[in-house]
Amino acid sequence: MVKKAMINPGWEHYKKLTYAPAVRKGNVVFISGQDASQVDQVTGRPIVRGDIMEQTKVIYEKLKVILEAAGASFEDVVWTTDYITTTENYKATATIRRQYFRESFPASTGIIVKGLLHDGALIEVDAVAVLD
Amino acid sequence: MVKKAMINPGWEHYKKLTYAPAVRKGNVVFISGQDASQVDQVTGRPIVRGDIMEQTKVIYEKLKVILEAAGASFEDVVWTTDYITTTENYKATATIRRQYFRESFPASTGIIVKGLLHDGALIEVDAVAVLD
Amino acid sequence: MVKKAMINPGWEHYKKLTYAPAVRKGNVVFISGQDASQVDQVTGRPIVRGDIMEQTKVIYEKLKVILEAAGASFEDVVWTTDYITTTENYKATATIRRQYFRESFPASTGIIVKGLLHDGALIEVDAVAVLD
Repeated sequence: MVKKAMINPGWEHYKKLTYAPAVRKGNVVFISGQDASQVDQVTGRPIVRGDIMEQTKVIYEKLKVILEAAGASFEDVVWTTDYITTTENYKATATIRRQYFRESFPASTGIIVKGLLHDGALIEVDAVAVLD
Repeated sequence: MVKKAMINPGWEHYKKLTYAPAVRKGNVVFISGQDASQVDQVTGRPIVRGDIMEQTKVIYEKLKVILEAAGASFEDVVWTTDYITTTENYKATATIRRQYFRESFPASTGIIVKGLLHDGALIEVDAVAVLD
Repeated sequence: MVKKAMINPGWEHYKKLTYAPAVRKGNVVFISGQDASQVDQVTGRPIVRGDIMEQTKVIYEKLKVILEAAGASFEDVVWTTDYITTTENYKATATIRRQYFRESFPASTGIIVKGLLHDGALIEVDAVAVLD
């Protein structure tokens, strides 16, 4: 299957955006940077809550849902990039990664950025998966 | 076709550089980060002009030329990363993306960086395309 | 060969980490961001020494070892990203790239980040290689 497919696990707010949560083409899945934002039910705007541990947990739950929608799993993830705005408690987020990457780890890069697009976001993660 | 090919749409100043505008290997095209710089005809140095909307337009025109040189199109683009130095008017650049991504969108990440390499650059975009 | 393989050239300290120096799946190799850190023999902690030229040399030696462990070479590298904390002497690092990329260059993006994870790190480089 080489045809390009936009992957969306049913997230309505992406319909207004100029990118997809993920794109699959051939056996490769490219996942857009995910932060911990949740769409506020009243205002319809993305809201980020919690510390870096809570945010990382939300992000990995999002990645899980995206991977499933793409027909992939964490075992297929070969690359992640962590964009963080603070190093405070960042090392502790490794415990969350261990909960999702159970069989093997991806290659990864972590960098400290000046900012992320949603207020309050401390970490954003993008990823590439290659299917068998 | 697995052989690695450096892709250059005829941009002379790249001959001095240690990277290509893009590289294709197999059916994947990796495009170097493009900012809005244009080579000054007098000094031979890259100059960036304009606000973020003007810069984004220049960048997408560059991406178009690179994709064509690689035998690809915007429909093949599966991933872009926006590196921005300001969020001012950044959302408005989505209108430019809509002009180039006509059929489907890529996955994308946007981060705020401390700086870009050319003075005056407000946005830089790199991309990956997968050919059919 | 599609199966995912974590690539480690024998670097013991990665056993505690939640990512691999590189991952290969199919004919693609994803290499984690490498800075110039060396593990201190006494404390076991990563230490970064030297100016940006010295650091870049260490990084490319690391990339060389990782590529070899993955069955790849610099000629297979199609994409690199330079994350730098200073532009001082950054241009000079091109001379080091020329020593390693002898036949052809990759596509590349360079951005100025707010910080890198190891104290004293001025540059970090990640990479993607596609094997023949």
